[in-house]
Amino acid sequence: MYIPNSSFFPLIIVALPLLYWAFNFRKQTKLAFYVHDYLSGHDISAITVAGKDGPQTSVLSFGTIIAVDDPVTEGPDLNSKLIGRAQGMYINSQLDGKGLHLMFSIIFTDGIYKGSTLEIQGADLFAMKEREFSIVSGTGYFRFVRGEQF
Amino acid sequence: MYIPNSSFFPLIIVALPLLYWAFNFRKQTKLAFYVHDYLSGHDISAITVAGKDGPQTSVLSFGTIIAVDDPVTEGPDLNSKLIGRAQGMYINSQLDGKGLHLMFSIIFTDGIYKGSTLEIQGADLFAMKEREFSIVSGTGYFRFVRGEQF
Amino acid sequence: MYIPNSSFFPLIIVALPLLYWAFNFRKQTKLAFYVHDYLSGHDISAITVAGKDGPQTSVLSFGTIIAVDDPVTEGPDLNSKLIGRAQGMYINSQLDGKGLHLMFSIIFTDGIYKGSTLEIQGADLFAMKEREFSIVSGTGYFRFVRGEQF
Repeated sequence: MYIPNSSFFPLIIVALPLLYWAFNFRKQTKLAFYVHDYLSGHDISAITVAGKDGPQTSVLSFGTIIAVDDPVTEGPDLNSKLIGRAQGMYINSQLDGKGLHLMFSIIFTDGIYKGSTLEIQGADLFAMKEREFSIVSGTGYFRFVRGEQF
Repeated sequence: MYIPNSSFFPLIIVALPLLYWAFNFRKQTKLAFYVHDYLSGHDISAITVAGKDGPQTSVLSFGTIIAVDDPVTEGPDLNSKLIGRAQGMYINSQLDGKGLHLMFSIIFTDGIYKGSTLEIQGADLFAMKEREFSIVSGTGYFRFVRGEQF
Repeated sequence: MYIPNSSFFPLIIVALPLLYWAFNFRKQTKLAFYVHDYLSGHDISAITVAGKDGPQTSVLSFGTIIAVDDPVTEGPDLNSKLIGRAQGMYINSQLDGKGLHLMFSIIFTDGIYKGSTLEIQGADLFAMKEREFSIVSGTGYFRFVRGEQF
């Protein structure tokens, strides 16, 4: 796998400020959290599991599938309070290797949303500085959310 | 693959009582059905297709992907009336191997919902006795459902 | 891989007329577009990346995963105006090999919906002449869509 600049590879959604508006009973909730995605280093949270050349295919190749169990924190610093995990997968789904399709759950394990989940699906064209994903559903506190983005 | 206790391995969502509330035009529908998931035995309905060590990686390893075409029945007994199939996939998405991310359709093939589908996405932390998944959408009878859980 | 009739294999959703009704603030939007899916030929837009026998498993086998970056056009002709890409994946999820589970984004890159996306999930039993999929969410113009089908 190609590791740019260092063996510490905060690939794709590291410390991405995720803003979330839940239109819940005509009430709007704004929520910020940070997902840290590491494909290498001491705290690997994502691994390649399939691709055109098998499980070891580069994440930058069209078709590669990555399994994730990323820490979700309250602040942009990985050492800030851990409030959940982002569990699921993404697949490199752009012919030039510059886009991902994300499918995962945010599982809140601490803080006021503890026990609730958000279901995420969306295109992550990581050459763009700002991206917007869809929250397709949720459980617990987020059971009735819809029309939300982050 | 590790097969606990027997060669008959009703893995993860076997006979899980699935309760479903569809808030359909302000009307609530409660629906129960049972999904039977067999990774071995005479009636295999799920196979591993990718993972860190290739298609044969254990379902209990982080990253393993399983394709499913599970029977859906009216009652908890596999021999009760077959009313549909659960088709799609899940991926082991917890670093310790104890959690799945589910993505599949419930395709009703009999009963009053015949011809309709439900789209499911959610975290299945199978160490927990009760789990809640999201119904993200549906077709036919379930075209307008939202805010539903099961 | 089995290629029926020719080396040009417009497999599964080629030129499928996709109709879309967005119930957006009680207003209905009807939208038609065409997704062209090529697993072989000069303009390959989809590749197999995992399956029971590895990345080269036939798309017609239960369990095979296909990554897609398909052109989306305004008309049924591949040479009509390109308005977006369908990026994501599908998995063969029927034991007899005759059904797919689709998970992808429609990313509009031109036309009046440029910059918006639709998130699709659904069963594609391709032996049926007409199929209906769920739009589970969207961004931009489609941020508030729900209860939609295509």
